[in-house]
Amino acid sequence: MTPAFEKLQKHLKQLPGLGYRSSERIALHLLVEKPDRLPALVAALEEAARSVRRCTRCGNLAEGELCAICGDERRDHAVVCVVEQVPDLVAIERSGAYRGAYHVLHGKLSPIHGVGPEELNLSSLFARVETGEVTEIILALSNDVEGEATCHYLTERLEKTAPKADAGGGVKVSRIGFGLPSGGGVLYADSVTLKSALEGRRAYS
Amino acid sequence: MTPAFEKLQKHLKQLPGLGYRSSERIALHLLVEKPDRLPALVAALEEAARSVRRCTRCGNLAEGELCAICGDERRDHAVVCVVEQVPDLVAIERSGAYRGAYHVLHGKLSPIHGVGPEELNLSSLFARVETGEVTEIILALSNDVEGEATCHYLTERLEKTAPKADAGGGVKVSRIGFGLPSGGGVLYADSVTLKSALEGRRAYS
Repeated sequence: MTPAFEKLQKHLKQLPGLGYRSSERIALHLLVEKPDRLPALVAALEEAARSVRRCTRCGNLAEGELCAICGDERRDHAVVCVVEQVPDLVAIERSGAYRGAYHVLHGKLSPIHGVGPEELNLSSLFARVETGEVTEIILALSNDVEGEATCHYLTERLEKTAPKADAGGGVKVSRIGFGLPSGGGVLYADSVTLKSALEGRRAYS
Repeated sequence: MTPAFEKLQKHLKQLPGLGYRSSERIALHLLVEKPDRLPALVAALEEAARSVRRCTRCGNLAEGELCAICGDERRDHAVVCVVEQVPDLVAIERSGAYRGAYHVLHGKLSPIHGVGPEELNLSSLFARVETGEVTEIILALSNDVEGEATCHYLTERLEKTAPKADAGGGVKVSRIGFGLPSGGGVLYADSVTLKSALEGRRAYS
């Protein structure tokens, strides 16, 4: 094909889930099959890049000061679910099982990759906790060494930050449960998942 | 998510092979994970839209007057493989089994969808044949009613267009073979494929 075509294909191939064939197919689609879609896609990309930014309170995607969740008065802003990335928030929203607020860290502590507390979106979380309006924090971080370290760090910092219980404050901190995924049998689970599932067993009534 | 995010996702979802989840993932990738890739992708899209056009001789993608294949002197321009779309050409090139030239019709005859000979890229093919430089035409069109009709039409027109054999001309027209795909057994083939395979049987030595 032509150099500009190959360059476009190379850029498309960097996107998650796209390989050599699928990027070639999309490039052909945009240049040959439906060339009228290309300017519309470019406009949508530019508009999103221009207008989408981080919510100043929780770090989720927003177009104004606050994101749609932080601005929704019907949600319970006393409960904050802490996630690593925006896609984690999207996954929890999709489940429909949660009606509280969020906080997106945009990463997790990882000394090996040079990610310390300074690199994470932490200050606005502590600021929210300091006001005393947060009563519960659910840590929905991943089940690996870095997730553990981040949970540990957050718990310690939150204990210091939150208003004391005798002053009418106190934040309950929990971590989401780990175990067998829904529909998954013991036979197919890896040993780390089985270990979590055994540790996380609950009374059966 | 935000309106601009959802608009971008909607445009991505129209691309071939992308569904709701994969377009959401790509939008999050471009807006949150790797926002520096977005301007580069926009630039590549715009550059391709600006510089990629049709080869005036064969209809393949080109950046100058002729495409890379029409401009390649090492290829055999006396043999022309007629395909419906550019992706068909790409697939044949990928096989490495062909060293001749191409002609892209950008469609096939379909009275139901209002596609007549006027809508196809035909004139430059007949112009090439009229010069007498083409000795063989391979019809690599699809194995359906519209592909059949297009083959029929082309064969009739080519017989009238090509210089007569007694004038040193004459074009040999063939159609690519149909049958079992490589690696596919009789058990898994549909009945139309099996019919083609039986009709296309060859002496086994």
